[in-house]
Amino acid sequence: MRILLSNDDGYFAPGLACLAEVLSDIAEVIVVAPERDRSGASNSLTLDRPLNLHKSHNGFYYVNGTPTDCVHLAVTGMLDILPDMVVSGVNYGANMGDDTIYSGTVAAATEGFLLGIPSLAVSLVGASNGNFLTASLVTADLVKRFNEKNICAPVLLNINVPDIEYSQLEGFEVTRLGRRHKAERVIKSQSPRGETVYWVGAAGAAQDAGEGTDFFSVQHNRVSITPLQIDLTRYDQLDVVTEWLG
Amino acid sequence: MRILLSNDDGYFAPGLACLAEVLSDIAEVIVVAPERDRSGASNSLTLDRPLNLHKSHNGFYYVNGTPTDCVHLAVTGMLDILPDMVVSGVNYGANMGDDTIYSGTVAAATEGFLLGIPSLAVSLVGASNGNFLTASLVTADLVKRFNEKNICAPVLLNINVPDIEYSQLEGFEVTRLGRRHKAERVIKSQSPRGETVYWVGAAGAAQDAGEGTDFFSVQHNRVSITPLQIDLTRYDQLDVVTEWLG
Amino acid sequence: MRILLSNDDGYFAPGLACLAEVLSDIAEVIVVAPERDRSGASNSLTLDRPLNLHKSHNGFYYVNGTPTDCVHLAVTGMLDILPDMVVSGVNYGANMGDDTIYSGTVAAATEGFLLGIPSLAVSLVGASNGNFLTASLVTADLVKRFNEKNICAPVLLNINVPDIEYSQLEGFEVTRLGRRHKAERVIKSQSPRGETVYWVGAAGAAQDAGEGTDFFSVQHNRVSITPLQIDLTRYDQLDVVTEWLG
Amino acid sequence: MRILLSNDDGYFAPGLACLAEVLSDIAEVIVVAPERDRSGASNSLTLDRPLNLHKSHNGFYYVNGTPTDCVHLAVTGMLDILPDMVVSGVNYGANMGDDTIYSGTVAAATEGFLLGIPSLAVSLVGASNGNFLTASLVTADLVKRFNEKNICAPVLLNINVPDIEYSQLEGFEVTRLGRRHKAERVIKSQSPRGETVYWVGAAGAAQDAGEGTDFFSVQHNRVSITPLQIDLTRYDQLDVVTEWLG
Repeated sequence: MRILLSNDDGYFAPGLACLAEVLSDIAEVIVVAPERDRSGASNSLTLDRPLNLHKSHNGFYYVNGTPTDCVHLAVTGMLDILPDMVVSGVNYGANMGDDTIYSGTVAAATEGFLLGIPSLAVSLVGASNGNFLTASLVTADLVKRFNEKNICAPVLLNINVPDIEYSQLEGFEVTRLGRRHKAERVIKSQSPRGETVYWVGAAGAAQDAGEGTDFFSVQHNRVSITPLQIDLTRYDQLDVVTEWLG
Repeated sequence: MRILLSNDDGYFAPGLACLAEVLSDIAEVIVVAPERDRSGASNSLTLDRPLNLHKSHNGFYYVNGTPTDCVHLAVTGMLDILPDMVVSGVNYGANMGDDTIYSGTVAAATEGFLLGIPSLAVSLVGASNGNFLTASLVTADLVKRFNEKNICAPVLLNINVPDIEYSQLEGFEVTRLGRRHKAERVIKSQSPRGETVYWVGAAGAAQDAGEGTDFFSVQHNRVSITPLQIDLTRYDQLDVVTEWLG
Repeated sequence: MRILLSNDDGYFAPGLACLAEVLSDIAEVIVVAPERDRSGASNSLTLDRPLNLHKSHNGFYYVNGTPTDCVHLAVTGMLDILPDMVVSGVNYGANMGDDTIYSGTVAAATEGFLLGIPSLAVSLVGASNGNFLTASLVTADLVKRFNEKNICAPVLLNINVPDIEYSQLEGFEVTRLGRRHKAERVIKSQSPRGETVYWVGAAGAAQDAGEGTDFFSVQHNRVSITPLQIDLTRYDQLDVVTEWLG
Repeated sequence: MRILLSNDDGYFAPGLACLAEVLSDIAEVIVVAPERDRSGASNSLTLDRPLNLHKSHNGFYYVNGTPTDCVHLAVTGMLDILPDMVVSGVNYGANMGDDTIYSGTVAAATEGFLLGIPSLAVSLVGASNGNFLTASLVTADLVKRFNEKNICAPVLLNINVPDIEYSQLEGFEVTRLGRRHKAERVIKSQSPRGETVYWVGAAGAAQDAGEGTDFFSVQHNRVSITPLQIDLTRYDQLDVVTEWLG
């Protein structure tokens, strides 16, 4: 089995190193990741300049681009044989609810999926305890299961793992994305040159974090697995808008 | 009526100027747009540095960030009163089918929607004839209609306008997003310093461009209007994945 | 006479617009400037990606690169005929003393000089009163003089103009660069995500600002003109170092 | 002895790792280097956003800024005790002649010197044979000599080392910077989206590479040592310009 591994924290991130090592026991792993931290990059794709590809001393490849660029370049040009899976992570911090659309971690997996390859995005919620090994073992479990018993459909799975020891996990749960309240206000500050600057503030508090959501699942020490799709069409509004227009 | 206008081509883009002028006849328009071309930025949000806000000689504000940053900053910090609508565009080129997830134009509107404001993303398909006025007039039509008769739901509409004169348009159509084939391969090139570089290649050809899609609608000289949603959960796969896991 | 005009504040800067207009009365002016503010860029040259060149609605060209890139691209590729002079400015703020080595304004002129063209860098000291017209008229005076009576040597002149009305100027003075004390400490701050960040602090106070320096000249309401060279060799230390090594 | 080590190739560069290891035998070494390749950055200083400082798994610190930013941040804020020397390198490739003003490697050392600390910039000419160890041993020689017998003046030394084995070196030589002919033209290319792009071309051939220059010295397998200064005033032109103005 051949796995293309990427992330959005950069090719030197501990979550990536840990996952690469664990997956190496069960598959051939090729790492192609951003040369620097690109958290929040979403599905950003670089069109106005070409990309470079370099190999690090530890064998990981890095690209001067976004997570999406990394997977795009690897799959449509660099690799001679298509990978069997694309895995993105382990991200430092959660990618749940509405935040998913900003996530570079999820974007790397989405690009794999768009290019026809089953893909997983893996994030460690909180991450202050640094249990990247837990998230890596969870990923290996899923990859092994995938290898034994294919899902009869293309898949893009968003996986969020609680930051606890593997033995403390309370199992897996298939979830829907929760919802957040609106984001907090930007935070005004002054530069030393007297200019007003603005930091993007905190994400909103959970609004829909009830049973069945990724928020709920992780809070109860379960691994949350959310199947994602990329068709943004709001089908249930087609009629309403048609009527409104008429 | 108060409209927040943004784009991803930068604050100096002709599509933005044209739309600002047309909308000014029917609303108070505030422009907050990126300081440089950020096409392909998707929902990228800047978290690792603060943002600057400057005012151009023509009264437009510009931000050293992404389209998402612009709307986020305007709505959660800069504006005293919330805008009634967020409009993003007129983009130079289409934002249809799968490309929608890479689009900075759509991302700016999505950010407005996430912050609770009805939002429109407007793109001029092809754009080689430069009929930004057509797209601007179409946008004004929709804004006026919106002002007269609210849609009884939050809306995020993705609008693609054929690059023809306004009088040649064959009406409006509510559509679903089409689908493309996989992207073309990256294009290898050499830098003058002998390094191999890679350009992201062309988007794939249309795969699902049949009746009801945005591709089809625009090809028949109609304005395509696709209501979008931001919940990426693939509900129809929840059971399949649960069974697979079990 | 044909003048290539650039700056480091970006192609939309008021100091550039003012200077372009004033020089247009006495020469053919071509503007090629950075697409965004690149203050502090020094002689930075972009080697790891290609550059784009676009034309703004007002006829100015802009480049997604540094001031040095702009002049380099214009002279070695874009222009069919070499310009007779390269002018950089009017910069928003002084470029005097040690600060000169950080300056993108001076760097644009330096690149012109390195490519064999007489070059001027023009800065408005302080700039809070916005007397860009004063600095522009001063530049026109020098260009006219240059046109009448060539200096019998390649020149790179660093010009700093007091921020007062033209009629209040107390003449021109040829000066040496002054010296500053060491820079102030960086300023620590916290990002909203709890990370420590560091702003580069203020430049040091003047250390050598005595008679004959640019600092002194401007303080006495004179235009300071410093001829610059680009050979960084410290000739007076060749012996000392040789002896030390031996 | 305490050495601050930086470079412009990024904190992961083999030339930096090699030099850090060799210097560790004779001094306490603290590495603060850019998070990505910043070759060609010159003395660029980041003023429009704050800087981050992170520690890599190997104990090196990295900054999301330029070489100048790294030394500036380390000396004016991060380090409790001032370093006795700043060393920058080993750069991948030469920094000789006119190229010195574009060099990020030299800029990092220049910043140390501006802040009052004896500083060395070290480059491996050609670098295709990868003799970073030769350049590192040469640097250690100079540092040791410096430790034994101080130069009675502040120093900024630009060191270029031939890419051969240490035993093959033909000694040290104190040199002046050579001169190059004008740079080659930019190289036009097309992006896959049909846009014309421009790569900065090759540096010019050597114009003054005679005896006494850095070019000559390295060509004869000697280590070139050029003392640099930062006063750009062209003293020998003060009279000419004064007369021209009068």
